[in-house]
Amino acid sequence: MRIAISTGGGDAPGLNAVIRAVVLSAYHRGWKSYGIQRGYEGLLSFNGVVPLGPAEVRGITHLGGTILGTTNRGNPFRYISRDDQGEAIERDRSDDLVAAFQASGFDALVSIGGDGSLQISHDLWRKGLPVVCVPKTIDNDVSSTQRTFGFDTAVSTATEAIDKLHSTAESHDRVIVVELMGRYAGWIALYSGLSGSADVILLPEIPFDIEKVCGKIRSREEAGRHFSIVVAAEGARPKDGAIELLERRGVGTVDRLGGIASKVARAIEVHTGKETRTLVLGHLQRGGSPTTYDRLLALRFGAAAVRAIAEGAFGTMVGLNGQDITRIPLENVVGRAKFVPLDCDTIRTARDLGICLGD
Amino acid sequence: MRIAISTGGGDAPGLNAVIRAVVLSAYHRGWKSYGIQRGYEGLLSFNGVVPLGPAEVRGITHLGGTILGTTNRGNPFRYISRDDQGEAIERDRSDDLVAAFQASGFDALVSIGGDGSLQISHDLWRKGLPVVCVPKTIDNDVSSTQRTFGFDTAVSTATEAIDKLHSTAESHDRVIVVELMGRYAGWIALYSGLSGSADVILLPEIPFDIEKVCGKIRSREEAGRHFSIVVAAEGARPKDGAIELLERRGVGTVDRLGGIASKVARAIEVHTGKETRTLVLGHLQRGGSPTTYDRLLALRFGAAAVRAIAEGAFGTMVGLNGQDITRIPLENVVGRAKFVPLDCDTIRTARDLGICLGD
Amino acid sequence: MRIAISTGGGDAPGLNAVIRAVVLSAYHRGWKSYGIQRGYEGLLSFNGVVPLGPAEVRGITHLGGTILGTTNRGNPFRYISRDDQGEAIERDRSDDLVAAFQASGFDALVSIGGDGSLQISHDLWRKGLPVVCVPKTIDNDVSSTQRTFGFDTAVSTATEAIDKLHSTAESHDRVIVVELMGRYAGWIALYSGLSGSADVILLPEIPFDIEKVCGKIRSREEAGRHFSIVVAAEGARPKDGAIELLERRGVGTVDRLGGIASKVARAIEVHTGKETRTLVLGHLQRGGSPTTYDRLLALRFGAAAVRAIAEGAFGTMVGLNGQDITRIPLENVVGRAKFVPLDCDTIRTARDLGICLGD
Amino acid sequence: MRIAISTGGGDAPGLNAVIRAVVLSAYHRGWKSYGIQRGYEGLLSFNGVVPLGPAEVRGITHLGGTILGTTNRGNPFRYISRDDQGEAIERDRSDDLVAAFQASGFDALVSIGGDGSLQISHDLWRKGLPVVCVPKTIDNDVSSTQRTFGFDTAVSTATEAIDKLHSTAESHDRVIVVELMGRYAGWIALYSGLSGSADVILLPEIPFDIEKVCGKIRSREEAGRHFSIVVAAEGARPKDGAIELLERRGVGTVDRLGGIASKVARAIEVHTGKETRTLVLGHLQRGGSPTTYDRLLALRFGAAAVRAIAEGAFGTMVGLNGQDITRIPLENVVGRAKFVPLDCDTIRTARDLGICLGD
Repeated sequence: MRIAISTGGGDAPGLNAVIRAVVLSAYHRGWKSYGIQRGYEGLLSFNGVVPLGPAEVRGITHLGGTILGTTNRGNPFRYISRDDQGEAIERDRSDDLVAAFQASGFDALVSIGGDGSLQISHDLWRKGLPVVCVPKTIDNDVSSTQRTFGFDTAVSTATEAIDKLHSTAESHDRVIVVELMGRYAGWIALYSGLSGSADVILLPEIPFDIEKVCGKIRSREEAGRHFSIVVAAEGARPKDGAIELLERRGVGTVDRLGGIASKVARAIEVHTGKETRTLVLGHLQRGGSPTTYDRLLALRFGAAAVRAIAEGAFGTMVGLNGQDITRIPLENVVGRAKFVPLDCDTIRTARDLGICLGD
Repeated sequence: MRIAISTGGGDAPGLNAVIRAVVLSAYHRGWKSYGIQRGYEGLLSFNGVVPLGPAEVRGITHLGGTILGTTNRGNPFRYISRDDQGEAIERDRSDDLVAAFQASGFDALVSIGGDGSLQISHDLWRKGLPVVCVPKTIDNDVSSTQRTFGFDTAVSTATEAIDKLHSTAESHDRVIVVELMGRYAGWIALYSGLSGSADVILLPEIPFDIEKVCGKIRSREEAGRHFSIVVAAEGARPKDGAIELLERRGVGTVDRLGGIASKVARAIEVHTGKETRTLVLGHLQRGGSPTTYDRLLALRFGAAAVRAIAEGAFGTMVGLNGQDITRIPLENVVGRAKFVPLDCDTIRTARDLGICLGD
Repeated sequence: MRIAISTGGGDAPGLNAVIRAVVLSAYHRGWKSYGIQRGYEGLLSFNGVVPLGPAEVRGITHLGGTILGTTNRGNPFRYISRDDQGEAIERDRSDDLVAAFQASGFDALVSIGGDGSLQISHDLWRKGLPVVCVPKTIDNDVSSTQRTFGFDTAVSTATEAIDKLHSTAESHDRVIVVELMGRYAGWIALYSGLSGSADVILLPEIPFDIEKVCGKIRSREEAGRHFSIVVAAEGARPKDGAIELLERRGVGTVDRLGGIASKVARAIEVHTGKETRTLVLGHLQRGGSPTTYDRLLALRFGAAAVRAIAEGAFGTMVGLNGQDITRIPLENVVGRAKFVPLDCDTIRTARDLGICLGD
Repeated sequence: MRIAISTGGGDAPGLNAVIRAVVLSAYHRGWKSYGIQRGYEGLLSFNGVVPLGPAEVRGITHLGGTILGTTNRGNPFRYISRDDQGEAIERDRSDDLVAAFQASGFDALVSIGGDGSLQISHDLWRKGLPVVCVPKTIDNDVSSTQRTFGFDTAVSTATEAIDKLHSTAESHDRVIVVELMGRYAGWIALYSGLSGSADVILLPEIPFDIEKVCGKIRSREEAGRHFSIVVAAEGARPKDGAIELLERRGVGTVDRLGGIASKVARAIEVHTGKETRTLVLGHLQRGGSPTTYDRLLALRFGAAAVRAIAEGAFGTMVGLNGQDITRIPLENVVGRAKFVPLDCDTIRTARDLGICLGD
């Protein structure tokens, strides 16, 4: 058996652990593994394929990034190339890709990726490519798996940042608004906000009322707590009209300030008179050595993907369900996202602790 | 409502997070919380009770240890005191304890503890004490909950230690045997052995064959890998007769060498001729700041305990089940332990990666 | 003897270690210590003085922030108060402060602070206040001491951030510009840029040529390294005319983009066509648990301050000189800053390693 | 120019940073670098030489261990080989080594190592080998340099361990004795004991009186502090007769208990009746990612070594002196060790803080 491994989308701590687990699991079955560099591009050009054995995956479990270098961000169904005049041309090269895959003598593809990659994998599977997917997103918003690797590391990085801001906020009597990843789902903001003892947590799932946020800050002020930490997912949004209302009341430029952190910070300054600062954690959440939780999950996903191949369970994604690794048909995964349920235990815990969720 | 909080048994990262969540959850319901210092002793003597409000639990989520100081290791059913001659006398003071609890005007007890504490709590509950338990053991071997807080931190500490030993083992051409906690269950050894890329993992659940262990080291040697990392839970045991056999073959003193790491190391030296070192990680696994995973789990447990009290669900333990926090009757918890299932996915992953489990 | 302790200016990891060392050193000499809360304000109002003994400074060496709460940012020589109409009035209350100090029965003041605090301490000393100063700035730019506590921690935090960005920059083929603290001196940028393997480091001490920066990025591109990390101190500045030149060439808005990172990033995008991102590390550099280097330096400074008091060496600042702690008269310290010498060994190392310094 | 790089002795965090700095500094001068694998053995056999360029040293600054694999522990002046019967034969192969060096076309050797390596380098230099040394020992006991790389990392690891033990010691009412590296010099014990708030620190430089140690523990007990942390360098020794005295008083087996931690712990239990535990940190102090302090020092040492070569300053060792890197003739370095001066500021700080040094 010859297995190809590709990674797609953004960086996520644990990628190397998945690759190592796939390679070692395959090796101990007597199979061979190959890494596809530069994503599908490397396969289409036939010059981005590298053999991977135990020596190549030695000592990489704890390393961030990916030994395959740049991850795949192309789409074979909408392949972009340049014509003689340098104009971009979009073509469907999915048939070429399937052909290249077969010509390379591969028996299976382990595709590690998020939303976009899962969709592509699903479409390639329908064209006959024997694929098994491993979900990858630090945002934890892929459906059909309770966790994705990289998420625990991102939460740890964000929590550590919030921890550090506490002493500064306190010794300077300030409000600090931290913007975390999460365009559609607020998992990182919720988990790290709770772990980091934030006073306010704003999620895409719960449109916020800026009055509620400022009320929380004021009530802390009255209790002698002259600082506050507000955590906002990048996708957090005010309730209908709230920002416009602010503008009429003089916050004016709030909508042109860039990210949600700047807007919320400006609104807090105007409403409460408190000096307010922002921190946009950005790419820091993607990098670094994976936590042990993520290492283990990534290793389990990688080994499970090879087991799925051994049992011919193509067209599936491996996922975590309680203590078990399950296989989910790709058609049940694609096009869905996993949002924070408004009635989940973690949300309830946040409310019980008196954290303001903006509603 | 007046809630008493007690902690029993060894230290575990996350204890303060549980206490904070209980206190804040109670506070926001308008209840009062009290910490019992020195365990039941503090209650029996009426001088170990301290009021706990938001100010007392500020900024403690990430701190190791417990703000209540020494944890409880006494047992009111077998209370030890000294007579005039200084002789130890054992009495059943459980009735005194229930009386002291009522005299103090408490409406509920949140008892945070492991095996021993759960048993005591169960017996006190049968005597009428309104108790809700929060499971606490870094070993993760309490039944009816998939995880206990402190475990993820212990695994992280152990994994970090294994990481550090790799470069030393490699640059010195050595075998290093690391002894980790786990007298009856090998959770810490299995999880950190996998995350830390150990070559051999020995668990109480799988009696090991020293020949298999040495065979793994030899095969690595032949493949040009002149070092190996062996992780052993303190409760790991050789198959029947194995140690005795070693003794007859000249390892002699192997049984008087102290912990399992020393024995295994000595046996490896004799059998393979490789220089072998040991590290007993010991108490390091108990200490330190909790990981974000443990902080969050501890906060959720604490908030859930207060919710259980609010709903009158006494005589129960809160536990993690998938994504949910459930309540389990104490009679279903006590006297049981949660071992690593031999067919679980994590064991399978270890085997798939070629890790020797000694069998 | 009664010693007062005040902290001024921004947060710095190690503040608590200084306080602990002062309190314990004083205690073992039989002296008493008092913390001044809210800086000089607390002293002037007579209600911000708290006694500090061994119990109050227990277990704080490794904690960020300060147990004295908000640090002092007022200036008794330019004391701001409000009149009946709420208008701000500035007065010189330095005589009141000296009187309050004497009325409180204090024999000495340990003032922990940076530039501003040192100036105030110097002026109070000339008015007769018996003061010993401990230098505090994470920027490491106080003169007469080779290091200030908090700097090593800030460098570590910044280096860790740069480490994390590497894998993301690489897997996304991007340039990332990181803005670090250092308005006048580039110590943090230089040390963390080197430790974190940055490709370009821009310091206030070396005006940069954007062409040189882009040249470095292009030469890496040609060598197959499709990403680069640029570290810029917030006070880094282009050579005369450079930004204006850029504007004429179409970068246009570069001057309205906020911090130096945004400007440099925009210029790089325009000149090289590479996708470029920024990260402003901001307050993250101030917070967190001090490194062991900073803990030790802070403890030594604190103990040395008490020794200086014992020997009547008032009007001095303690400082690190090689392995020794020395005392420097305040008049030799104030009004000077410590810049990165252009011919120092660390700059030379950066050049030797091929790092672009923009010149 | 062709430069050879060899590493000798134990592992030390920062080794890779030195190698990277040497390789990059050489590269930017147009020189070539080669790594000697398996120390002098690799050179003598002509099959352990690998070319090192920018690609080989990419991304290794923060990695523990060494990319050259096993470090050198042989001695060409006392080369051990096996005869036909397998008997060990010792020969002087230093002339062979010099010949091999010249035959390989090398112009200079950068030798990274501690005591033993420095002596060998000195002797080879006297035989005409153009060598520049970089001091390497986590113990910090090489003379003529104020710091060696790896030391700050070892201190950090040890301090973190002491931090973790605090909460466990406190919550269990125990004494914990931690044994740290330092056979002849107590730098690690002193620095980490101070940073980690140990109650007792025992160094090779200060023979201890067990009565003083126990007195400290008792006085803490009386002050309501029912736990203590004792830090002992492995080379710590009791004052003349002290252990024998203990034996007559019933501690009996104290001398057969292995390391100094066990002996001290047993003596404490006998004398104070306190439950006492030990932790031998061992190899954990050698491993791990270097701190930023060590990364920077290692990079500076590596770059300085190449500068020394460029200026023909052979037969020297680079060292840190205040802020500067200096060159010291090897004859001034070998055969000397750097002990903790009994009157240094750090010792004084420990005494000022009330830490018991056993005297």
